[in-house]
Amino acid sequence: MADPEAVTPAFPTRTDARRHHDPSVRGFASDNYAGAHPEVLAALAVANGGHQISYGEDDYTDHLQRVIHSHFGPTAEAFPVFNGTGANVTALQALADRWGAVICAESAHINVDEGGAPERMAGLKLLTVPTPDGKLTPELIDRQAFGWDDEHRAMPQVVSLAQNTELGTVYTPDEIRAIVDHAHGLGMKVHLDGARLANAAASLDVPMRAFTNAAGVDVVSLGGTKNGLLFGEAVVVLDPEVGRHMKHLRKMSMQLASKMRFVSVQFEALLAKDLWLRNARHANAMAQRLAEGVRSVDGVEILYPVQANAVFARLPHDVSLRLQKRFRFYFWDEAAGDVRWMCSFDTTEDDVDAFLLALKEEAAR
Amino acid sequence: MADPEAVTPAFPTRTDARRHHDPSVRGFASDNYAGAHPEVLAALAVANGGHQISYGEDDYTDHLQRVIHSHFGPTAEAFPVFNGTGANVTALQALADRWGAVICAESAHINVDEGGAPERMAGLKLLTVPTPDGKLTPELIDRQAFGWDDEHRAMPQVVSLAQNTELGTVYTPDEIRAIVDHAHGLGMKVHLDGARLANAAASLDVPMRAFTNAAGVDVVSLGGTKNGLLFGEAVVVLDPEVGRHMKHLRKMSMQLASKMRFVSVQFEALLAKDLWLRNARHANAMAQRLAEGVRSVDGVEILYPVQANAVFARLPHDVSLRLQKRFRFYFWDEAAGDVRWMCSFDTTEDDVDAFLLALKEEAAR
Amino acid sequence: MADPEAVTPAFPTRTDARRHHDPSVRGFASDNYAGAHPEVLAALAVANGGHQISYGEDDYTDHLQRVIHSHFGPTAEAFPVFNGTGANVTALQALADRWGAVICAESAHINVDEGGAPERMAGLKLLTVPTPDGKLTPELIDRQAFGWDDEHRAMPQVVSLAQNTELGTVYTPDEIRAIVDHAHGLGMKVHLDGARLANAAASLDVPMRAFTNAAGVDVVSLGGTKNGLLFGEAVVVLDPEVGRHMKHLRKMSMQLASKMRFVSVQFEALLAKDLWLRNARHANAMAQRLAEGVRSVDGVEILYPVQANAVFARLPHDVSLRLQKRFRFYFWDEAAGDVRWMCSFDTTEDDVDAFLLALKEEAAR
Amino acid sequence: MADPEAVTPAFPTRTDARRHHDPSVRGFASDNYAGAHPEVLAALAVANGGHQISYGEDDYTDHLQRVIHSHFGPTAEAFPVFNGTGANVTALQALADRWGAVICAESAHINVDEGGAPERMAGLKLLTVPTPDGKLTPELIDRQAFGWDDEHRAMPQVVSLAQNTELGTVYTPDEIRAIVDHAHGLGMKVHLDGARLANAAASLDVPMRAFTNAAGVDVVSLGGTKNGLLFGEAVVVLDPEVGRHMKHLRKMSMQLASKMRFVSVQFEALLAKDLWLRNARHANAMAQRLAEGVRSVDGVEILYPVQANAVFARLPHDVSLRLQKRFRFYFWDEAAGDVRWMCSFDTTEDDVDAFLLALKEEAAR
Repeated sequence: MADPEAVTPAFPTRTDARRHHDPSVRGFASDNYAGAHPEVLAALAVANGGHQISYGEDDYTDHLQRVIHSHFGPTAEAFPVFNGTGANVTALQALADRWGAVICAESAHINVDEGGAPERMAGLKLLTVPTPDGKLTPELIDRQAFGWDDEHRAMPQVVSLAQNTELGTVYTPDEIRAIVDHAHGLGMKVHLDGARLANAAASLDVPMRAFTNAAGVDVVSLGGTKNGLLFGEAVVVLDPEVGRHMKHLRKMSMQLASKMRFVSVQFEALLAKDLWLRNARHANAMAQRLAEGVRSVDGVEILYPVQANAVFARLPHDVSLRLQKRFRFYFWDEAAGDVRWMCSFDTTEDDVDAFLLALKEEAAR
Repeated sequence: MADPEAVTPAFPTRTDARRHHDPSVRGFASDNYAGAHPEVLAALAVANGGHQISYGEDDYTDHLQRVIHSHFGPTAEAFPVFNGTGANVTALQALADRWGAVICAESAHINVDEGGAPERMAGLKLLTVPTPDGKLTPELIDRQAFGWDDEHRAMPQVVSLAQNTELGTVYTPDEIRAIVDHAHGLGMKVHLDGARLANAAASLDVPMRAFTNAAGVDVVSLGGTKNGLLFGEAVVVLDPEVGRHMKHLRKMSMQLASKMRFVSVQFEALLAKDLWLRNARHANAMAQRLAEGVRSVDGVEILYPVQANAVFARLPHDVSLRLQKRFRFYFWDEAAGDVRWMCSFDTTEDDVDAFLLALKEEAAR
Repeated sequence: MADPEAVTPAFPTRTDARRHHDPSVRGFASDNYAGAHPEVLAALAVANGGHQISYGEDDYTDHLQRVIHSHFGPTAEAFPVFNGTGANVTALQALADRWGAVICAESAHINVDEGGAPERMAGLKLLTVPTPDGKLTPELIDRQAFGWDDEHRAMPQVVSLAQNTELGTVYTPDEIRAIVDHAHGLGMKVHLDGARLANAAASLDVPMRAFTNAAGVDVVSLGGTKNGLLFGEAVVVLDPEVGRHMKHLRKMSMQLASKMRFVSVQFEALLAKDLWLRNARHANAMAQRLAEGVRSVDGVEILYPVQANAVFARLPHDVSLRLQKRFRFYFWDEAAGDVRWMCSFDTTEDDVDAFLLALKEEAAR
Repeated sequence: MADPEAVTPAFPTRTDARRHHDPSVRGFASDNYAGAHPEVLAALAVANGGHQISYGEDDYTDHLQRVIHSHFGPTAEAFPVFNGTGANVTALQALADRWGAVICAESAHINVDEGGAPERMAGLKLLTVPTPDGKLTPELIDRQAFGWDDEHRAMPQVVSLAQNTELGTVYTPDEIRAIVDHAHGLGMKVHLDGARLANAAASLDVPMRAFTNAAGVDVVSLGGTKNGLLFGEAVVVLDPEVGRHMKHLRKMSMQLASKMRFVSVQFEALLAKDLWLRNARHANAMAQRLAEGVRSVDGVEILYPVQANAVFARLPHDVSLRLQKRFRFYFWDEAAGDVRWMCSFDTTEDDVDAFLLALKEEAAR
């Protein structure tokens, strides 16, 4: 049956830009080393042409809300933004007063990888807690959750979780529910940094709502880039009261896209059916394949449960250095010999097998 | 002759995103109501596929520097960012100390249209000057350029110009040179907000360098979105010393794209040959056609010299209201009856003629 | 009758500090060139000795609340701070959300004399309005009071008045009431910068409450320093809801005094009986005496109504320069020949007469 | 011999302020529960009277520079400010670029007790390190001193030490020298939070310069309040290049006193001769007396070396609660049973002995 809105994207073939890279090369450095999924790219052409109101009043952003409702319930509202740091800082400002502070894991992206943006751009103090595996618990939160009436202390108003965590671990819905209940009970709001939310859902085999609005989370940073977009994240507000002024925060946080249709339509391509899940399941499966292979290599230890698309391992420093000449990846803690291997939607079984072979060769030298 | 790097972009035809808009509808509301130029869209496919280092160490961003050199000289360096507010705030932070302030026109985009981002995100005080036509002069700058040793006053350290201005007027290279010499003579740096830089170059019929590095400007916000990109601007640093820490400022200002190749390759499509100029010339020509037609309509007055792609006009309020039911455009000063009509790279002669006809009809009612 | 709490302050006579100034020299530069009123100095000794809880839980700060109630009504609460900029920035943060902006006169102290502290420390954008005499009106406010739903514009949430203004003019209670009603009607809060609140009350011959809580003002910056304290201002919250988190804002704004008893007891000395009014009336009377004398000097023009303790005048530049060699005072607008002459609680009739004689001599040369 | 500048302060005896406290009551809660030293109070009267230029151009602030030179060498410059948080935040802004971060102990006052002012007011990210006794070492600093070229990480530009530390421990001059050399070798500047600098000098029995400029420290927050002032700290710049714009930072940080003579003359009373040292030695001696007594009480454990005016102890929770009904003091870590007992310049031997007696009684119950 013909879909009245379906359209075969018409692409131009002329461009002055030339190819500078070898598209057959892939590595294990990061899921943002990958490009865009072809179905996402195709969506851009669908949205192109003609005039659309800028700054978010276009038909694609309007439609995106319905797509978001199907995932996060009818009161959810998505505010597309540019990148993950932008999503997190915009979201946290909606949850914390000027005098508020944010409890997070010491290893959280907002603490270690955002160039101090939360502090510098939003004046947010982060109250950090060391964790064994990147996951907070009510008990760990309590190490920073005190002193609300004490003006000498930045007031804890928000708990920020990451799902999955920076260490590739995944909270169960119950674990998040317990944290949210604890935080709400203490009068705090809960932000969930979901740069890899799809990978967590794929790992848990539950809908994204199962550990977000169903678990009571207030605001989500919904990742798109690592799930196959060219760029684009969204602040998804689950508590409408919180989102009342979000558009103002987004603009002043320099995250308001003028031609927003091009962010929104990418999310539509991702979320309207199951591309988000296909991409995430694939990346996770590749990480499982990688981990399985790694376990059989002598002298290489896997550090955390492999629950999503990341494998953290400890191996001899010289082995890593030699392996890095063949495949790109990063040290996580170079002094300790810890490395991180990331799989993405475009990682192939051959990529994994070739990498494992190289690892075995270098480990045996 | 075959170009060894040339590639016919291979586009996917499948996507779950559907068309929600009528691509035949265009108006005169803003140059960011337009979509992306097809040649820009094609460039995305060229850069897609395979793995590229994220956060700007990819081959496309590397190549972009050479393209930028061809426009702005060999010491220029481009830092791609997401949007214009991001470009401006990132650039201004590089030019102003914590205790510095920025002199700009009262009508400047940074003052009236960025949601307070300069103040809120960067703590920058703007020292504004009313102008007759959006253009600063040394004399106007002097109204705020004083008190460097007075700690009670935010220290004027930067002059921020816009080329073209918010009112569609264009500085000559000599006018910018005079402002830069004046500012430098007073120990201040000069930022040029070039959200529509291409339109100014097309209007003046000179290279972009003629009124940027040749005129002594220190840092430029180079617009891409309004010139045909999906999204993307660049901070172009002309004084290398200023740019030494730009990458840190870009990151902390939430403007660092992970898959930066997709910003850089768009700029390559725009700037490698003459697409930037074709687009700008066309938009300007449409504005001239529009202005010419408007001049023959009784009761409609053109407010500023039409030097780029904007036409500002004053007409009876009821005429505007009726006309807005047929074509989208904005009031600029509703109380005064002032409106703004913008042309873009995709405005057609037919669009202009149809609009003029409608204007005449409504003005005659 | 003996006052059971009264105490003759016991002062030490030994100190290693030595006198470096001539206490007989006074000028007309600023009311903060004056020292402290002797009765205020005496109060410090009363509060000294023994231990008192720091950071505001001392008996003097507690008692100060009752004194404040007698002036501003039973729901008022005073938060002593260090200086005027601190009071204003702390107060404005309580009234404006992160996305809020503040409407004020272009000549307002917060705009021109606080080193950009509102923007830099609190991220507050000021939406300024030129005024003929430093006074806002509902009509002038309307020039900036729009666009609440427009995220491209910093949201106007606060109107900040100064009583008396930087130009020495004084609002009537009715004028303030009209502004407050207008602002509240638009959903905005009203801050009153009362660095010289006492002078305004003395000028109007009404209690301070007549143009603060009685006029509906939400938060007042209550000046102490220019009224005879060594240092010390207070944020006086008239709307308790607004003040709920003020202590957190005060601390994070670096305005929380550890030995707060020494701020509070100064205010007690000032406000418990009539010292505040005696000081203000005297300063105002000296300004009237000065203005009266000035009016008889040829070639000297008084610029604004002399309603408090400031006289603004325009006179030949060379006369000012010669006069400045005999008495300290500041140019207000040196290019225009405008000067400001301030009287303070310790200005004597002889000071004024000597100054007038000098002015006449220099004007006649 | 008569001192030509000496003056017997003339104090007023009249004031409307009344005594609300019992000056015979003292406790062990904080050194800022104490009032001002009488010789400091006397200094205020010396500086009072007549007109002095405001905002730091007065004769007392001028003279203070010479006093500061005698302590910190001829290139030192003092910028009086209001309080310790203000001193620290002002100083750190001079040492860190917008993109800079500050390495400090997790227990540092700037991290735990300043209401987030460094982050909120100055956008400074703190990179914290757990320490056993509040003291940093080159090795501990190295846990955060890395990644200068990595824009994802806030750039470590400053090491902030506290002398003495929040835990009452004191660095030797050699320890500070080693830290400074290490930090400077890595291109970082060193800030020393000297809220209790005098206590450290007294403890080490060396001049303050021995562990500040002689050890290479760049900027010092010089404490006054806890050493006997009513209020007042000073940013002492030891590296003149760093201080070039300090006055602008002080103003915008809301730390510029208008009647600065009253801050400066207090410092003169403290520092011109030996009052600073007498006060510090006495407080330290009282802490030693207290510690010695505590060591003989069963069930009470002293936690850190008692090197200045603080005694940290662990004792049964119920004993602490009963003791707090007799003497004011704070829990440091209530869950662990840790308390802090502070001595000040006005603590008497009788105070200590009475407290020890009470402690023994309560511990024995």
